[in-house]
Amino acid sequence: MPDATTNVNPTLSWIGAVPGELRLLDQTRLPLAEVALAVRDVETLREAICRLAVRGAPALGVAAGYGVLLGVQDHAGGGARIVLDRARASAERIASARPTAVNLGWGARRVVARLEREFTNGADGAALVAAAHAEACAIHAEDVAACRRMGDLGAELVADGATVLTHCNAGALATSGIGSALAPVYRAHELGKRVRVFADETRPLLQGARLTAWELARAGIEVTLITDGMAARVMAEQRVQAVFVGADRIAANGDVCNKIGTYGVALAAHAHGIPFYVVAPSSTFDLELADGARIPIEERAASEVTEGFGMRTAPPGIRVYNPAFDVTPARYVTAIVCERGVIRAPDTARVAAVLAQVGR
Amino acid sequence: MPDATTNVNPTLSWIGAVPGELRLLDQTRLPLAEVALAVRDVETLREAICRLAVRGAPALGVAAGYGVLLGVQDHAGGGARIVLDRARASAERIASARPTAVNLGWGARRVVARLEREFTNGADGAALVAAAHAEACAIHAEDVAACRRMGDLGAELVADGATVLTHCNAGALATSGIGSALAPVYRAHELGKRVRVFADETRPLLQGARLTAWELARAGIEVTLITDGMAARVMAEQRVQAVFVGADRIAANGDVCNKIGTYGVALAAHAHGIPFYVVAPSSTFDLELADGARIPIEERAASEVTEGFGMRTAPPGIRVYNPAFDVTPARYVTAIVCERGVIRAPDTARVAAVLAQVGR
Repeated sequence: MPDATTNVNPTLSWIGAVPGELRLLDQTRLPLAEVALAVRDVETLREAICRLAVRGAPALGVAAGYGVLLGVQDHAGGGARIVLDRARASAERIASARPTAVNLGWGARRVVARLEREFTNGADGAALVAAAHAEACAIHAEDVAACRRMGDLGAELVADGATVLTHCNAGALATSGIGSALAPVYRAHELGKRVRVFADETRPLLQGARLTAWELARAGIEVTLITDGMAARVMAEQRVQAVFVGADRIAANGDVCNKIGTYGVALAAHAHGIPFYVVAPSSTFDLELADGARIPIEERAASEVTEGFGMRTAPPGIRVYNPAFDVTPARYVTAIVCERGVIRAPDTARVAAVLAQVGR
Repeated sequence: MPDATTNVNPTLSWIGAVPGELRLLDQTRLPLAEVALAVRDVETLREAICRLAVRGAPALGVAAGYGVLLGVQDHAGGGARIVLDRARASAERIASARPTAVNLGWGARRVVARLEREFTNGADGAALVAAAHAEACAIHAEDVAACRRMGDLGAELVADGATVLTHCNAGALATSGIGSALAPVYRAHELGKRVRVFADETRPLLQGARLTAWELARAGIEVTLITDGMAARVMAEQRVQAVFVGADRIAANGDVCNKIGTYGVALAAHAHGIPFYVVAPSSTFDLELADGARIPIEERAASEVTEGFGMRTAPPGIRVYNPAFDVTPARYVTAIVCERGVIRAPDTARVAAVLAQVGR
């Protein structure tokens, strides 16, 4: 996994038609167990999002779309107004599950917007539910295609024989396709280039160790696990030629919000003249924010740091600071790869120019 | 702990006269349990060093001195030649336990050198053992004094109300006194300055979470635990005004080898204009190395990364890279504080000038 050709990805899938269910791979159980979650209502989905059973900005966008569908699918007979009200309420619940990834609200709002158009056009309850299904599936299909396109564009940045470093997991497990940051790696591999990966373990929740290492190893790509503090050393030893990371939100000027620790990786890459690439679909951009300073940063529980994996590793009673994300200023970003094109040396004008291009 | 006034420090102490025993606080058991180890022979000490029951460059220097004493203390009756041979063999075993911290070999060789002088002067076996005891105790006393002196010098760099960031543990637990990097914090606190600390947890072995947080909390100093990847974010948020770290070996030009992750902290501090201070006794300098490129870097077991929290957190069979140290080039070091003085903007000439000063 992933099979880059067929895009079979167990991260997230919709089972059946309407009513159906959202099937998620419970990522909190990896790498020790592969457990599927069957989600049939909004609150179960919200809880899965909060505890990171499904995570990754693009996957959250797709899950949010299906989440609105979950909220309305049993109410086709209640009439159009009921369906629209439930869609809005469902979107609100889903979007508020986590504050940072813009894709979450984007996916939910996109389905609601579609229903609002259909409602205005006089659709009945059953037609609205069908429209929710269609829109959620469209988001899903576009995510798969966007991953593939980002992989094609990004693979050109991966030299034959290169070793790249990544942080957190922006792979197949973070999307419904072949990933964002890892899509160029998968495509380069598929095209016959030799490519290897250093994966930061990514404390506190070890998405690099648990998820990135797992999916790359399954895809037959050589991956070497390091702790986050080793990234700068690995660069000084000239072991990596590029950095590829994903994003949870990108401001209009190209400032990139991503998993905590990304900013330190960017500073180290900058100090060593190593290109730092961000790979994210256009749904990750939040053009209403001029720069990264106003991106809300989720703070998570202290226990993630002090008792992350079954045992307490810090004395009781001490303070903990646990921001889940950081912001890398655009000046440290060599390029942003999105499905609409590659934004080199990103700034407000270049971001706007590439995003204005029609999606392919 | 530590009591900066009386220097009562459970890290390491010699119990009794000769023959006596080395008492160590087993740091692998912290913060959950305080367990003392009674060490009566060289191989037990070597094993304790290898598994980091005692660690920290200055503490290793003191332990190494006592280790040579352990190797000879029961052989006073065997004659001077036997004692000298055993001292040399013991020093060899101890120095080879870990390759990076120069203090380990330094402490062991210093006791051997003393015995060689006494042997040349015609001392008998009993006199040599007594000399080993005296020299080991002298190293111990000098370390306590050096910590205190570094604390006095470094406290001048800590403004009232400041928050400092530290990596790994270079506190009382890493020395036989009040620490190296944390000595300025303890002294500033003692002098009535308000000072707070952000402690990087320091993967893979979590010395920051387990040891630094523990000893600072016990000393009544406010400490906030973060993961290593949060340090750059904390700096961007202007939450810290200075970085203080220790060192395991410092080259003649001021390049600093310290716990893995230190280099990334230095790069982040540099990017934010935050002073980066290294605090280490003169025994940490290795003037035979022109720069940091030739410092041997210990690589440790993959399991420290993959099963560090009591359960496996990475898929089986993947590669792991686990260097225990990194090297921060002197150009990123604002100053090195040692007991002989403060070396600002360190280079070969300034390092030589301060080290040439008589120890106080």
